[in-house]
Amino acid sequence: MLTAEIIAIGSELLGSSRTDTNSLWLTDQLNRIGIDVKLKTIVGDDDARLEEVVKDAVKRSRVVMTTGGLGPTEDDITRKVVARALGKRLSLDEKVLEEIRERFRSFGIANMPERNSRQAMVIAGAEVLSNPNGSAPGLYLEHEGCAVALMPGPPREMKPMFENHVRARLEKLAGDTRFATRVLRVSGLGESAVDEKIAPIYTKYENPQTTILFNSSEIEIHLKAHGRTEADAEALIDDLSLKIEKELGNSAFSFRGETMEEVVGRRLAMTEFTLAVAESCTGGLIAQRLTSVPGSSKYFIEGVVTYSNESKTRLLGVDKKLIKEFGAVSQQVARDMARGVRHRAKTDFGLAVTGVAGPGGGTEDKPVGLVYIALADSAHTEHKKLTIPGDRELVRWRASQAALDMLRRRLI
Amino acid sequence: MLTAEIIAIGSELLGSSRTDTNSLWLTDQLNRIGIDVKLKTIVGDDDARLEEVVKDAVKRSRVVMTTGGLGPTEDDITRKVVARALGKRLSLDEKVLEEIRERFRSFGIANMPERNSRQAMVIAGAEVLSNPNGSAPGLYLEHEGCAVALMPGPPREMKPMFENHVRARLEKLAGDTRFATRVLRVSGLGESAVDEKIAPIYTKYENPQTTILFNSSEIEIHLKAHGRTEADAEALIDDLSLKIEKELGNSAFSFRGETMEEVVGRRLAMTEFTLAVAESCTGGLIAQRLTSVPGSSKYFIEGVVTYSNESKTRLLGVDKKLIKEFGAVSQQVARDMARGVRHRAKTDFGLAVTGVAGPGGGTEDKPVGLVYIALADSAHTEHKKLTIPGDRELVRWRASQAALDMLRRRLI
Repeated sequence: MLTAEIIAIGSELLGSSRTDTNSLWLTDQLNRIGIDVKLKTIVGDDDARLEEVVKDAVKRSRVVMTTGGLGPTEDDITRKVVARALGKRLSLDEKVLEEIRERFRSFGIANMPERNSRQAMVIAGAEVLSNPNGSAPGLYLEHEGCAVALMPGPPREMKPMFENHVRARLEKLAGDTRFATRVLRVSGLGESAVDEKIAPIYTKYENPQTTILFNSSEIEIHLKAHGRTEADAEALIDDLSLKIEKELGNSAFSFRGETMEEVVGRRLAMTEFTLAVAESCTGGLIAQRLTSVPGSSKYFIEGVVTYSNESKTRLLGVDKKLIKEFGAVSQQVARDMARGVRHRAKTDFGLAVTGVAGPGGGTEDKPVGLVYIALADSAHTEHKKLTIPGDRELVRWRASQAALDMLRRRLI
Repeated sequence: MLTAEIIAIGSELLGSSRTDTNSLWLTDQLNRIGIDVKLKTIVGDDDARLEEVVKDAVKRSRVVMTTGGLGPTEDDITRKVVARALGKRLSLDEKVLEEIRERFRSFGIANMPERNSRQAMVIAGAEVLSNPNGSAPGLYLEHEGCAVALMPGPPREMKPMFENHVRARLEKLAGDTRFATRVLRVSGLGESAVDEKIAPIYTKYENPQTTILFNSSEIEIHLKAHGRTEADAEALIDDLSLKIEKELGNSAFSFRGETMEEVVGRRLAMTEFTLAVAESCTGGLIAQRLTSVPGSSKYFIEGVVTYSNESKTRLLGVDKKLIKEFGAVSQQVARDMARGVRHRAKTDFGLAVTGVAGPGGGTEDKPVGLVYIALADSAHTEHKKLTIPGDRELVRWRASQAALDMLRRRLI
């Protein structure tokens, strides 16, 4: 089995607030093709240390992936230092330079800034990996039996570059073992409850391996299997996954890592039902999540964010007397919001949320974290009261998740 | 200024779903006492690699912190391998062994499992750091001018050990150097343009250090300074930061790491202006960002997500003829949306976005990434046409950022 090292380059990654997420994604990609990540290094814009790290890495590992440091500024040292570590020349590639110039022109910038010519420097013997999503091309070379890829730091540039250029090259080098992974997502059950239900099943298996993770508002079940082919590994996962899904029933909502909004969106698209959303404390988060899915305009008709009482009445027709008697955060108002948005937008479903996201605005009666969600269709309206622990961000996120889950369960 | 490396040990940290959070916390702690973290390594339970990493680290850095690998199992290799890397003997310390035994007894376990005796092995010359929160004691030693601390992996054991035993020892070594950091954010200028403007300023300084980062739709300028006291370091940052701000003018919108929505929110709160938002392609993202800020209900009155033409007319009063003549994605409709939402919500400002987020829905005339933003107040309405490269997520994010930036500039 091939061994790999990942080197993340950039002083910003050494701060106390920034995590390197590229290496998690890359690890997953490498694992799938049967390459084992043995070491990760995070190094700043520091010539001497980076040189030493690269020298060590190519000596002891068969695959070395670097991310970051390919930009046009003085800080971007990766090309220069890797060339030096490998004892190879670095020279300007006119063709690459012209491509970068062309990219600037396509954005209406006739004169490429001079410093971007730095990005056209190529290490001797390296192939240039095109980057349609940014100005920094990547580099790939094989050096004394070690495959080395230099990729940009921004995930939206790095990921397509790996997928389109690096993966196939590594697959050729990798051996026969293939891995498969899958993430199942669960809603409406706690971590211990999930483990109690499924431990009797998954503990019988060494392959796949099962890990249960708690991720903000969802439980994730990670399965990882290996086999001679990807199909073998997938078949092992299918087998265990089916048993787990059966045990969890409707609480398992995602079987291939889909998000809640993708699952709900797919069900709406399939059934050709339409939806309108009225939000108070979630402030547009539900609409934003639903519309983040391509094609959502087929079923998502409109959303309103009614932050004031006046808006609730004017845009949704919520009865002023209800707000006065029960307060804006109440089951009565949530239900009226759901009915109102559905009626006015003439959709099949109306989904509504009202609550106290905090940190201010809580009272003894209606503390931070109190949220009502409601769902209306032509026949009836249901609601649910939630008490969500956590800060503003978490309250909003979990409220949006619970509301979407309510709709998902109705659509089943 | 002392330099440090952090080594996180444990194969579980090399998976695709787990991040090492200890090192973020440790970096912050070290930075505060004036120690600069230059490198982070994550290594599995792998003798050869760990030995090489430790040997390199103690050669090039004055402080080396390891976390993890101090448990009682075969996988817990840290003591053994670090002793070997430093060329020092490892031997059983009877006093430590008795303390571990005593800990087990205090939990009602008369016979300590034999394997836990491994945790009483001490590197020659090391001080033992007690661990009231677990069975693994830490070790601290100075080796050829390098301070080495071996700490357990679980944060609830590592953090108190650092605070109670390691910090004071490092403070003695660190002397008087203290650090300060700051993040400036820029909108409306590209990375190269920012660098060209401010490189003549910041390259004159070795202290503070300046790093320019491109973060999805914003440029970030990270400043880091050191001085004899925290106030000295802050003063150095103030000085450079003012010069950079002056050069960038209104393009610099955030000086202490605040987000765009926080900056806009603060200006709205200060001026007591109110806002309503009408969104099409951003689908609630602008409302969601604005309302993520605590206290936003003071100025954010309402938002509407008008995904259908019918919604644009019914909720915003957009003239049907305009939609028919110019299309929903047009400057005319954007302007009408901004005016309409402002008028109906009776706010000071109305902000609107309409565009093609993709991946579908683009035409030759109106390609994916074409976005119109508009801002209306009582006196007039302005608009801007954007052509945003990237995928759906990025188009939506940048459109929301440009719209918020338009409002920010108006509020100045």
